[in-house]
Amino acid sequence: MSKAIEMHEKWRGKIEMKVRAEVGTKAELAIAYTPGVAEPCLEIQKDVNRSFDLTRRWNTVAVVTDGTAVLGLGDIGPEAGMPVMEGKAALFKVFGDVDAIPLCIKSKDPEEIARTVYLLSGSFGGVNLEDIAAPACFEVEKRLKELCDIPIFHDDQHGTGIVVLAGLVNALKLVKKDKTRVKVVISGAGAAGCAISEILFADGFTDITLINREGIVQADKKHTSDRLNVLAQKTNKSKTKGGLAEAMVDADVFIGVSAPGILTKEMAQTMAKDAIVFACANPIPEIMPNIAKEAGVRVIATGRSDFENQINNVQAFPGIFRGALDARAKDITTEMQIAASYAISSLVADSELKEDYIIPSALDMRVPKAVAEAVRKAAKQ
Amino acid sequence: MSKAIEMHEKWRGKIEMKVRAEVGTKAELAIAYTPGVAEPCLEIQKDVNRSFDLTRRWNTVAVVTDGTAVLGLGDIGPEAGMPVMEGKAALFKVFGDVDAIPLCIKSKDPEEIARTVYLLSGSFGGVNLEDIAAPACFEVEKRLKELCDIPIFHDDQHGTGIVVLAGLVNALKLVKKDKTRVKVVISGAGAAGCAISEILFADGFTDITLINREGIVQADKKHTSDRLNVLAQKTNKSKTKGGLAEAMVDADVFIGVSAPGILTKEMAQTMAKDAIVFACANPIPEIMPNIAKEAGVRVIATGRSDFENQINNVQAFPGIFRGALDARAKDITTEMQIAASYAISSLVADSELKEDYIIPSALDMRVPKAVAEAVRKAAKQ
Repeated sequence: MSKAIEMHEKWRGKIEMKVRAEVGTKAELAIAYTPGVAEPCLEIQKDVNRSFDLTRRWNTVAVVTDGTAVLGLGDIGPEAGMPVMEGKAALFKVFGDVDAIPLCIKSKDPEEIARTVYLLSGSFGGVNLEDIAAPACFEVEKRLKELCDIPIFHDDQHGTGIVVLAGLVNALKLVKKDKTRVKVVISGAGAAGCAISEILFADGFTDITLINREGIVQADKKHTSDRLNVLAQKTNKSKTKGGLAEAMVDADVFIGVSAPGILTKEMAQTMAKDAIVFACANPIPEIMPNIAKEAGVRVIATGRSDFENQINNVQAFPGIFRGALDARAKDITTEMQIAASYAISSLVADSELKEDYIIPSALDMRVPKAVAEAVRKAAKQ
Repeated sequence: MSKAIEMHEKWRGKIEMKVRAEVGTKAELAIAYTPGVAEPCLEIQKDVNRSFDLTRRWNTVAVVTDGTAVLGLGDIGPEAGMPVMEGKAALFKVFGDVDAIPLCIKSKDPEEIARTVYLLSGSFGGVNLEDIAAPACFEVEKRLKELCDIPIFHDDQHGTGIVVLAGLVNALKLVKKDKTRVKVVISGAGAAGCAISEILFADGFTDITLINREGIVQADKKHTSDRLNVLAQKTNKSKTKGGLAEAMVDADVFIGVSAPGILTKEMAQTMAKDAIVFACANPIPEIMPNIAKEAGVRVIATGRSDFENQINNVQAFPGIFRGALDARAKDITTEMQIAASYAISSLVADSELKEDYIIPSALDMRVPKAVAEAVRKAAKQ
């Protein structure tokens, strides 16, 4: 038996409930439960906002999946997605002191998933969508944002976008290149690839080429989602035809959220001087760091904890929700996301910045605090 | 500001999440989260039953309301029901070591409520329905039992039924009357009244008269639910016409789950010798204990903690779910419920049994243990 199975059988759940109220005596029970509990109930009936003071709602986030895109495992079913959701809930608590409730939904219909979460949304202060396949995840997120007045955040998209931008800001600073002039190639045009493109454009990047299994995303083709159709109009400025090999020529930045090993040494060798490669496919990156180095790439990041420069969503989501909950934000806007990115990158001092240290460790407890503060501030503006 | 509001503002939630897994180092993260977590995911994909070993599902119960019948407050809305659901979750943990997740649903449509809970049911080991108005609660429970393979339990019905039966068993023992021969009057033909009637019939009681606002429930009338139509055929053996006053003549037992003060001293005086009154309306019972005593009633119980003989659901639900979860039961059958009742009543030894001690205290920690053991045993049979 593997260590992971052994530990999961030992834990029998990575989270549990803890009681905050005293209920051990009749007098205590009369306050926390009947008859005393009627008073906070009536107070919330009068003003539903009071549910953020009188219940745990202010600190509670639902972590929701349908189990269709769990890790790199694909559609493994809702119950099978739960170990990831519980892990996420544990990280929410440890890094953000956020109470996260893992929920898996037995449906693949975006409208039904959105409706289910909406009907429960009075129980939570926010919703973190997780491991829902594209393009359904776009529809779920869009519908939920329309229906709910609490923040809706699809971590696979925006969490990834935030941390990639954070790393990229520092990598560009190191190689002294300007975001408005670099050529960025993004491999993978699913949930993460689209969100990364959007946050980079929002932050002022101008030259992005998106690639998926059919090759470079082209403006004159019809794509699988409206979102990709919009991005297709803004990306691939040079109107290059072909696939990854063609896109990589003279690229300053490669960002992979796609498949293991697809960036060859030969392709990496055609990149511009002082090239940056974020190969985030997990567990096997688009190119192994040693091979990228041999090809002349200067800054390399991956999604793995056993290499330098780990791009890990845990740098974003706990602080993002901590800040959004504290600000009672109704949404997590692009401005709040970009503020989070710069909060992460600013934790690496100029004097510390080097090829193998462009982003703080995923376990650096300064990160969630800095992110939360930046998000809170951005939310108030 | 009242003490209850003050404490709820201090707690800001009566429950929170607690982390069971170690996630503080890269090595720990690699087991509890990526990449290690992929293994338990794949194991559950192969056999969904493994979700009861590898996640918290085995110990997790959803506490679900739509906020339509919260305490005696009526339809106050889903968010306003949450203080009660959180209180319940705290009691689940303290008395049953069950992890309960409070969820409020923004819908009053029984089919939609059932569908919502069903879609989430892969996240839980059981569902406790709470404070949903009749007759919608009957439909929600019925549909959920059809849809789900985990126990569904509407506490306002069955929890109340279990504890009333537990008290009644001991009260009848004390007054030396036989359950097959006593005349029982139940005031209130909603969720609790129906469930009490059913569990009493199932345990061998034969003579039950149900009363609601329109008077004695009659066999030849059409009622608000199918369930009441069925009960109408079995109750009121003597075919008495009229209301509470008429029903109470020569009654051995009165059980009130209805409205404050409706049982007058005069009515109580018409009861049989050695009469038993369970006046469970909260916070003001159907008759105050001192008045009932003056009327000659021998055994009196209420729902209040400040009088003797408290009928409180907390004596049932934590142990019921503890036992059902431990047995991996797919349902909480009537047999399991009756076993729970007798487990509670058996904790009062014959030598201890007296008018003001027919049922153990709501805070007696022997109760959930005894109930859990009885339910586990009944589930295995």
